[in-house]
Amino acid sequence: MRMQRAEQTTGAHIEEDNLVVGVDVGGTKIAAGVVNAQGQVSGRIKLPTDTSSVEHTLQAIALSIRSAIQAAHVPSQRIKAVGLGIPGIVDPAQGVCQLSVNLGWQHVAVKAWLERELQLPCFIENDVSVAALGEGLYGVGKGQENAVYLSLGTGIAARAIIHGRLYRGAHGMAGEIGHTVFAPSGPLCRCGARGCLEALAAGPALARNAEDKLQRGESSLLEGIMQEQAVADLRAEHVFEAAARDDALAGQILREAGQHLAYSIYLLAMIFDPQMVVIGGGLAVEGSPLIGATRTGLTHWMKQAPVFREMLSQDAVRLASLQGDAGIVGAAALAIAEARTRSFL
Amino acid sequence: MRMQRAEQTTGAHIEEDNLVVGVDVGGTKIAAGVVNAQGQVSGRIKLPTDTSSVEHTLQAIALSIRSAIQAAHVPSQRIKAVGLGIPGIVDPAQGVCQLSVNLGWQHVAVKAWLERELQLPCFIENDVSVAALGEGLYGVGKGQENAVYLSLGTGIAARAIIHGRLYRGAHGMAGEIGHTVFAPSGPLCRCGARGCLEALAAGPALARNAEDKLQRGESSLLEGIMQEQAVADLRAEHVFEAAARDDALAGQILREAGQHLAYSIYLLAMIFDPQMVVIGGGLAVEGSPLIGATRTGLTHWMKQAPVFREMLSQDAVRLASLQGDAGIVGAAALAIAEARTRSFL
Repeated sequence: MRMQRAEQTTGAHIEEDNLVVGVDVGGTKIAAGVVNAQGQVSGRIKLPTDTSSVEHTLQAIALSIRSAIQAAHVPSQRIKAVGLGIPGIVDPAQGVCQLSVNLGWQHVAVKAWLERELQLPCFIENDVSVAALGEGLYGVGKGQENAVYLSLGTGIAARAIIHGRLYRGAHGMAGEIGHTVFAPSGPLCRCGARGCLEALAAGPALARNAEDKLQRGESSLLEGIMQEQAVADLRAEHVFEAAARDDALAGQILREAGQHLAYSIYLLAMIFDPQMVVIGGGLAVEGSPLIGATRTGLTHWMKQAPVFREMLSQDAVRLASLQGDAGIVGAAALAIAEARTRSFL
Repeated sequence: MRMQRAEQTTGAHIEEDNLVVGVDVGGTKIAAGVVNAQGQVSGRIKLPTDTSSVEHTLQAIALSIRSAIQAAHVPSQRIKAVGLGIPGIVDPAQGVCQLSVNLGWQHVAVKAWLERELQLPCFIENDVSVAALGEGLYGVGKGQENAVYLSLGTGIAARAIIHGRLYRGAHGMAGEIGHTVFAPSGPLCRCGARGCLEALAAGPALARNAEDKLQRGESSLLEGIMQEQAVADLRAEHVFEAAARDDALAGQILREAGQHLAYSIYLLAMIFDPQMVVIGGGLAVEGSPLIGATRTGLTHWMKQAPVFREMLSQDAVRLASLQGDAGIVGAAALAIAEARTRSFL
């Protein structure tokens, strides 16, 4: 017994000394930082994403990692692993990014390239999965046994954290609620189906919905807002701005999107039975009318469906808390989880 | 290192000798059997369920366990644990059945009572969860990393087996697809909501749907079938029989129910991303028109939704294979899993 306790103490001591680097690889910028076992970030670095070639993008990633280590002023031998969140389809076991539209990547062996370059164990995952890990382990979901993370932005996807680990499913596609059909005769989605949640409620869908209504001659403050800002393309933020000015058309678009989002949270809760649902991504803004409409939709389902009411309360539906650090902390959480599994952390 | 290997060998040896008893507690009968680590059953016993009092029901369960051990002709010291599947809401951690309508139970401390009576570790779970464990670990789902079990009968519920273990969720309610609303203006469900899957496609729903159509004056072979059999109440099996005789009304009822069931499998697959979906329960009969209609509905979704097509094939949707032994083997799987977790098996 005494030996066991001594080992545990040593283990804890080593852990506190160890650090990892978390990297948030985006289509326009790369953010990196040094992260400790408590999820605290130091040496934050932001670089533009050089997408002129695969090699250049990988070099920019390597540069961001080295710069973060320098900026954190820590001896490099304390850095034990690197985690990366990548916007696209990722095979974490092979360390390969199969497809990233944003980076212009197809079958890029990210892990092998970086490990050769940096002489450090590297782990990659999809960016939404990484954000889910970050929020689940170090953000608002900290301490929960099970949490579902719903990412709202240009795309919509959910990920579940079960017993402190990302649940990937058989093909790494668990939580693909964004490409689940809610309205079979609805608008065409980029996945090829009609009426997916993403085609009904993601950022581009809100903009497209507004454009359709304007073209049908409905009146709205939206045209004035676009003239003021001298922009040609209507975007989701314009719909939010119009809604904030009590525009009826914008309000209706967000109400409808909120109803679809509420149904998606209802389904995720009925199927995963999580302790918490965390809403993250670019559209998860406190006080936003989209989040308000989603909560109104949830109240409807709680009234309508007694079993759901027992499973989830409004308090258990929370907005992501890590803000700008989400990608870095999430990628670090991936590195920490993977390194611990392989027992070198 | 040598010590570790020796321990492992001993462990494997002990495991093969060890046996558990699996008990399927139903509202009308109790089935029990002795099960080995390979899921093989011996000493099958079936007793009527004495529901005249809680004490009597518990005594009948204890009797079924002792009888199964006797019938299996094995020394009782080889029996290391007992697993029980109970039709109702179960708290496995406390070992309490909170509510069983079929048994007339409310807050019955099953585990404590049986452990005192039998001097053996006992583990309880909901009967659908137990069937999911049995099919996932020893039945058609054997060898799969993740499987979803969909039980179709008087009720409808799904359960997920993840990495060889039952996934319970935060409140033990993960997989409550039966009480998920698919048609908000649909028929009232016993849970209080309208248009739940269970109210649209479970056995009683099929019968109710047929009765409604008959009362509206639609013509069908159903009335003749009920007269032939001299029964007053229309049941799901009459709808199946009429459909088998090409009755249009019965065929339409099963087609509609199949569409709802297909949508439920679609949702479960998009959210859990399982390697396999196993359909079990009383209505999961090979060649049944309900299963046929469900497969037709799945083909529709596979055509409609490219992402779903990548995640699940018709081959990955299977009928349960354990037949009459499902409850016993599933309960035994629970006992084996729990006993291993507590390392006395």
